Amino acid sequence: MPVSGRTELVAILGDPIAQASAPRLMNALFERQGRDAVLVAHHVRAADLASALAGLRATQNLRGAIVTMPHKVAVVALLDALAAEAREVGACNVVRRAPDGRLVGTMLDGEGFVASVRRAGHDVRGARAFLAGAGGAAAGIAFALARHGATALRIHNRTRSAAEDLAARVRGAVPGFDVAVAAGPSPTGCDLVVNATSLGMRSDDPTPLDVGGLEPGALVAEAPIRPEPTRLLAAAAARGCRTHGGLAMLEAQIELMAEFVFAAT
Amino acid sequence: MPVSGRTELVAILGDPIAQASAPRLMNALFERQGRDAVLVAHHVRAADLASALAGLRATQNLRGAIVTMPHKVAVVALLDALAAEAREVGACNVVRRAPDGRLVGTMLDGEGFVASVRRAGHDVRGARAFLAGAGGAAAGIAFALARHGATALRIHNRTRSAAEDLAARVRGAVPGFDVAVAAGPSPTGCDLVVNATSLGMRSDDPTPLDVGGLEPGALVAEAPIRPEPTRLLAAAAARGCRTHGGLAMLEAQIELMAEFVFAAT
Repeated sequence: MPVSGRTELVAILGDPIAQASAPRLMNALFERQGRDAVLVAHHVRAADLASALAGLRATQNLRGAIVTMPHKVAVVALLDALAAEAREVGACNVVRRAPDGRLVGTMLDGEGFVASVRRAGHDVRGARAFLAGAGGAAAGIAFALARHGATALRIHNRTRSAAEDLAARVRGAVPGFDVAVAAGPSPTGCDLVVNATSLGMRSDDPTPLDVGGLEPGALVAEAPIRPEPTRLLAAAAARGCRTHGGLAMLEAQIELMAEFVFAAT
Repeated sequence: MPVSGRTELVAILGDPIAQASAPRLMNALFERQGRDAVLVAHHVRAADLASALAGLRATQNLRGAIVTMPHKVAVVALLDALAAEAREVGACNVVRRAPDGRLVGTMLDGEGFVASVRRAGHDVRGARAFLAGAGGAAAGIAFALARHGATALRIHNRTRSAAEDLAARVRGAVPGFDVAVAAGPSPTGCDLVVNATSLGMRSDDPTPLDVGGLEPGALVAEAPIRPEPTRLLAAAAARGCRTHGGLAMLEAQIELMAEFVFAAT
């Protein structure tokens, strides 16, 4: 569908942005849906985020924006309203522009993760989960695991205090949920293992957890998309684990993002 | 070529914008040129123009913007630099974003008109020209006719003082050029007749000049694109004139705009 004067816009704001997979995935989705819309990449530096948002507010045919690194936390203070998921996590990865220019944000890393796992024929319900990472994506996944019926969650992070902080926030939001800092980097005894760090994107990255502790049959999932497979998923497959890559997670999230952006306001 | 994270952006700012032909024309040009760029329509209201420009400055992969109604005059005060054509006319219809965010504007209505006439195998050199209108597009065309060797120019406008003002400005810029307000709405004795008003876009518009005065063999050109042919061009053809429609003018200008936006800065 050619881009015309009637085409609705969705932006993705990030720095860098050239490598982003979201434009191709979301534009392919719009094509399948027959929607006259285009996702365009906006390369925006941290210091320019407020000006960029002023431009989005001023653009009547802009329906929303995906927000990616390094803006996910900074954008929160610049929005007019936040969904519960974004308030909880303290970060936002997608914004809807209401017809009056108000910007409403949410955070779909967690819901996207759960949806992608279900779509692949698995479930998080009843899972004993091990999560590597305590940043924005990890937080979204932690809250979503707690809300969607995981049995227990252990959080491992290089900076232990960040893992403690996230565990306490999840416990506060979902009282009674069994969440704690992991005893170490080994996911022994867990049947759902998630890497929500960025480790794995570079070939010389250390693995984000102790692959020797992966249980055969566990589902091992991670956010990095490239290389395919990552070292972690290759090691997991070699140990007899099921694997779930970053592309499946991103594809599920792209659909949720499009639903959020084009929802009636 | 799919829109990806590497795609460069050009915006077109206007209100309304849905009807604009520029996106399809410029995107088809990018396709022919193999350029990874997309022209996207931004529906921006007059009160929001400054905010929209702040957003353009903040977007590193944005190469520029076409500026259309109602922003062509207002945008001049918001730019960092103006080409001579834009200063002369007091309006701007295309902006280039320098890598440091500076916005440089020019006005290509006149150069686009001359280029399109030449491309159609005609010339403005030596022409005795009749121009209907004294707004931004008319001013661009008037200055370009003076600079590109027309012999004389007569300007007709419903508000006569605007025609007088434009004639004086052209005379000031190109001393010795034979330019004056037309004696009336009849283009008698002229071999180049240009409608640079918006009259003709609606079926019940009056014609912008006295078609009874059109000389057989004269070249009659106009800015309105639809309906095709307009009443003026239909009447001109019936009188044995050659005709030159708005689409040809726009196509030539789109190429000049792309050259300006993607010029090394």
